[in-house]
Amino acid sequence: MLIKGIIQYAHHLLEESVTEGEVVIDATCGNGNDTLFLSHLVGNTGRVIGFDIQKEAIEATGDLLKKHHRTNMTLVHDSHAHMYKYVSSQSTIGGAIFNLGYLPRSDKKIITQPESTIEAIDKILPILKAKGMVVLVVYHGHEGGKDEKQELLRYIMQLDQKNYSVLRYGFINQKNNPPFILAVQKK
Amino acid sequence: MLIKGIIQYAHHLLEESVTEGEVVIDATCGNGNDTLFLSHLVGNTGRVIGFDIQKEAIEATGDLLKKHHRTNMTLVHDSHAHMYKYVSSQSTIGGAIFNLGYLPRSDKKIITQPESTIEAIDKILPILKAKGMVVLVVYHGHEGGKDEKQELLRYIMQLDQKNYSVLRYGFINQKNNPPFILAVQKK
Repeated sequence: MLIKGIIQYAHHLLEESVTEGEVVIDATCGNGNDTLFLSHLVGNTGRVIGFDIQKEAIEATGDLLKKHHRTNMTLVHDSHAHMYKYVSSQSTIGGAIFNLGYLPRSDKKIITQPESTIEAIDKILPILKAKGMVVLVVYHGHEGGKDEKQELLRYIMQLDQKNYSVLRYGFINQKNNPPFILAVQKK
Repeated sequence: MLIKGIIQYAHHLLEESVTEGEVVIDATCGNGNDTLFLSHLVGNTGRVIGFDIQKEAIEATGDLLKKHHRTNMTLVHDSHAHMYKYVSSQSTIGGAIFNLGYLPRSDKKIITQPESTIEAIDKILPILKAKGMVVLVVYHGHEGGKDEKQELLRYIMQLDQKNYSVLRYGFINQKNNPPFILAVQKK
């Protein structure tokens, strides 16, 4: 077998930790691929709550899921930093995924911001189930990507190892700042 | 499931890439755990060639494998940098593992050296089978460990992505310089 690629490994981690019937979060819907993936993972008794600050992303995601006859999602046109408005602090979350960077084939100036990313992670971790994971796919080749990466790493590296494992997974001999994964698992 | 720990993931990569009957290399026998693991993986029709510069490591490994009634190994009391003396350049290698650092519960001054590690990897890569892996578990908390890590990273990051994938896998919120994995897979 080939070592799993970044997206494949991100999905693998979620497959291994999310179970049917759970509520999960796609913090950055983008083109909807992860939302669709999560929708299948949690099944009809579960729910995906998807966020995106770009209207076109929410629409594209809605279209993609409709095409696949999926209805177990709530798509929110707002920043994941405002998650607390849509996800009760009494809920239990089965897992979450973030694609950090910009929406492919879109305006490269609209990028995720480290503050809002960190705020969203901070909101999810307390309600994440034990052994649940927050998976971050970090694209950092664009303008501002390096700063976001550094700030995020600083935040994530100080998560207490008593409560969380933080894995970094990435290919280090590729050109053009390839994306890598940060996965936070609650103990 | 929990995210795989370092040793567990190193073994997982070898399990997924090594098949029965192959010749594989344990470049640093240490206490023999990896040699034993590889001996089972390749089965009675395969062979493990194990290296260590410390006589006590070769003896401990011999004892451990004997205890488990394993006989499909050749243990060499020499540096893995001299691998070419024991492994023909005409062979095909199914995979290899290195534990870089020092032998646990032993003299911390006897450590692996970046030059010999790199020389050994350089010898293995040309005879590694397609999709085969060289898995390096990098312990770097000891004196000299940081230099070895840097030199090794420099070497490994310049491996051409057309021919090799180089994965880095490690936990980044742990204290005391935890080990990490570098895995080189031939394309």
